[in-house]
Parts: sequence; structure tokens; C-alpha cells
Amino acid sequence: MEIKMAKDYGFCFGVKRAIQIAEKNQNSLIFGSLIHNAKEINRLEKNFNVKIEEDPKKIPKNKSVIIRTHGIPKQDLEYLKNKGAKITDATCPYVIKPQQIVESMSKEGYQIVLFGDINHPEVKGVISYATNQALVINSLEELQEKKLQRKVALVSQTTKQTPKLLQIASYLVERCTEVRIFNTICNATSYNQKAALDLSKEVDIMIVVGGKTSSNTKQLLSIAKQHCEDSYLVEDENELELAWFKDKKLCGITAGASTPDWIIENVKQKISTI
Amino acid sequence: MEIKMAKDYGFCFGVKRAIQIAEKNQNSLIFGSLIHNAKEINRLEKNFNVKIEEDPKKIPKNKSVIIRTHGIPKQDLEYLKNKGAKITDATCPYVIKPQQIVESMSKEGYQIVLFGDINHPEVKGVISYATNQALVINSLEELQEKKLQRKVALVSQTTKQTPKLLQIASYLVERCTEVRIFNTICNATSYNQKAALDLSKEVDIMIVVGGKTSSNTKQLLSIAKQHCEDSYLVEDENELELAWFKDKKLCGITAGASTPDWIIENVKQKISTI
Repeated sequence: MEIKMAKDYGFCFGVKRAIQIAEKNQNSLIFGSLIHNAKEINRLEKNFNVKIEEDPKKIPKNKSVIIRTHGIPKQDLEYLKNKGAKITDATCPYVIKPQQIVESMSKEGYQIVLFGDINHPEVKGVISYATNQALVINSLEELQEKKLQRKVALVSQTTKQTPKLLQIASYLVERCTEVRIFNTICNATSYNQKAALDLSKEVDIMIVVGGKTSSNTKQLLSIAKQHCEDSYLVEDENELELAWFKDKKLCGITAGASTPDWIIENVKQKISTI
Repeated sequence: MEIKMAKDYGFCFGVKRAIQIAEKNQNSLIFGSLIHNAKEINRLEKNFNVKIEEDPKKIPKNKSVIIRTHGIPKQDLEYLKNKGAKITDATCPYVIKPQQIVESMSKEGYQIVLFGDINHPEVKGVISYATNQALVINSLEELQEKKLQRKVALVSQTTKQTPKLLQIASYLVERCTEVRIFNTICNATSYNQKAALDLSKEVDIMIVVGGKTSSNTKQLLSIAKQHCEDSYLVEDENELELAWFKDKKLCGITAGASTPDWIIENVKQKISTI
């Protein structure tokens, strides 16, 4: 099978940084899943003895704690600080930005509209910085049911797609007197998405490598499927199915922002032998 | 000829207010054309002795001066004040708003993008309140040639069309870190435009009554032409041409925001006799 890699794929700046932080802080606890990739988490635990703890109450006093890449709710951060935790913050700087925007805009009296998935840790963290009742919507349809104020500030989960943010922005501009729009979508995400879109137009099959709980990986799959029906998401090479490649000549590969190079390499090697 | 009037047409709030101000301030000078309708201006001059003066230097000291509906540049206003003019401000409140926004946003360090026609008095007035270099663009294409800063504030000439503002807003959101969008398009304009659009779909011929220099009248014509090829702009009943109505059954009528009812009535009566 012939293989073509996407122009941009894999680890973003924030994830690379978080992994370096974890490797430098051996024997720490990580509050929540550092990145959305179970295999890389296992590697860090095995090689550097950094363990994940989801429940802040179970974190011992004065323990060294790493804050996950997606950030955590403000209340949890304060709880850990009060407990005397030695905190190393691996929150991606591109996530700290919307946290700060939500805090300052809600203090200035703007209604916050956060375009994101309410169940995603990043969104839970960002929205916790609002000082008033904020709206979290994951689609234009969800927004249409909400009551809007005259002055609105719009921020986005970093992994969202720009065209959808623009639709939401347009809807608000038509209805509100003032809309402050902060484009907090991360370039790394959009570069990977653009590259996946381009590649999907020229291949017979697309393999997206990444965690099944990773928001940006799932989006890469959805983008790839627009032009290449035969697109599949795998966490590693063991999930590849031979039947997918029947009668196919050219296979495109892309990978989510939390997929380590060593997993992508394994997938690539296995496909090349098909 | 059967006639159907647009659901909304003619004088807006700001124009009605300006005419009342002119009627109450007999013997005043008006700085610039009060509204974009020569015939109504003639009526005011004849009945109330209010005269237009385009050159601020020609306005005598301590004279009573009415500021036109579209507003004037800040420098001209200061010049008149320094000259001791007794100023009555007929600037539409919906135009004062973008003036204030441009002033405060440029002071806060935002690059101003004003969607409007640089040659229109309203735009000349609004942009004069910028404390830094502002961009005035009349289309998305014009904007594409400009260098944008990271923080941008977008305002619109009151008579622009919302879909075009949304296009420009989307372009900015994709390229800037923060975009503050102030929807300063006047509802009266959009109501008249919506009504003209609806009516143009069901008639054989559309007559748009209004001044040929009026921005919103010209836009009504352009909107009407989208669905009704036989759309014509007339300043009064004398400009109607019989040939236009040949083989037509139903004539739609709309009018710009600065067209007085008495002119519309004359046009209507003449068409009804065709």
C-alpha cells in the first residue's frame, strides 16, 4: 500500500510542552488525564512514575501536582492550592487565554457565549472563570433556543472549526448590539484539519490515528469523511483491519494533536506492509 | 395600473426628527444638506426660511445652525462652536452612536474598520472621531487589500445591508485575535429593504421614489432589481415614463428614508391613472 502523510498532523505545541513537563516532574500526580491518549499516558507512568488522579480529594497534602493540558476548573485549582499542593501548570497557554477572556468579559458585564462541548474538560475549565451565567453551546441550533443579552462576548473551545464559529458569530451580530468575538481556535488544530481535508481529496482511504475520546481526533475523522468515505479512526496499528484496504492504492494518514509520533510510526509501518 | 405599496417605506425616525427640528428653528442655517431630498429641502426653505450652507467659513458668527441628519466631522463641529454658533443638533441618534463607538474604540487601541462609503457625509462624520488611522471600506474586496491589526472594531454605516456586514465580520474573525462588532445598521433601513425585496417578487414593475444621491434609495433600487428587472428610481412623478408600464399589471412602490409622503402620494396618483 502506498502511503501519503498529511502536510500537518499530530502533536501540537501544548501537548509537546505538557509531556516535557511530565517527564521533568517524575513521581508527580497529574490532576486529570494529561492528554487524551491512553498509550502515551501509560508510557509516562511506566518511564517517569507520573500517575493520574481524577479526584482532587484523593490528592495527598503537599503533593507535587501537574495540571492537565486542557486546564481545570478554577475551584479545583483553588482547592489544590489550599491543600498545599506544589502545582506545576501544564495548561496549554492557548487554553489559559479563553479562561482569562471569560473572566474579564463577564466582569465587564458581557454575556459569555462559549462555543464548545460542555462535557469536555477544557470547556469545564474555561467556563468556571465566568462571574455570571454563561451560555455553553455546541451548535448554532443550541444557540437559537437561548435568550441573548445586548452585549455578548463569544469565545471558542480551541479545537473547534472556524466556519462553525463564523456562523455563530454571524447569528449573534444580527441580534446583539455589540458582539466581542475572540477567535480562540488554535492554529495547530486548523492546520491539521486543513491538511486532512486536502489529503482526503486525493487518496482512496484515510487513517486517522488518535484517542477515541480526543475531540480534535474525532473532528479529523469527520473532515476526512467529507471527501473520502473510507476513513477510519484507530488508536494504534492493532486496530487496522485488512478488509478496509481491499482494492485501495493510496492511503492517507493523519493524527490527532495528542497522538505521539511513535504510535503514528507503528501504524505507518503496518500499512506499508499491506 | 394596479398599485401595491411596500409594507415599510419612506421616512425613518431620524429624518422625521430632523424635519421637525428644522420647522421649529425658522430662519436658521443648515450645515450641509439636512436630508438627501432636494424637494423637501426646497419646501423647508420656502415655508420656514431654513437655508443650507455647505461651507462652514461662510456661516456668520453667532448664527443659529442646524446640524444635518447625517452628522458632520468633529473638526467642523468644533469650528462652529468656536465661532459662537448656536447649534441645534439634528444628527440622527443612530448616527451619533457609531461616532461615539469610533471615538472610544480608537482610544482603547482598536483598529477601526468602518463599512461604508467614504464619500458619504455620515461616514465622513463618523470616521472623523477616530483617534488613530481608521480603515473605511465599501466592500469585502476593498478590505482584502488592507493590513489588519490584531484587535479590530467593526462599525457600519447605518444604511448598509446586514448580510454584507456579516461577510466582513467573518473575514475579520478569521484573521484577528479579537473583533468587536457593533451592529450599527439602522432597523428602519432593513425593514424598508426587506419590504422592497418581498414586494419585488410579486409585481411586474417596481418604482422606487427617492433622491438620486440618497444611499438608501439607491440600495432599494438594487434590491428591487434582484427579483424585478423592471425597477426604476424617480425623484418625483414627472420622471415616470409611460413606456415602462406597457403590458404591466401590478406596480409596486417603495421609497427611500428621506422621501416625504407628499411626493410618494403624487407618484402613486399619477401611476394609478396609467
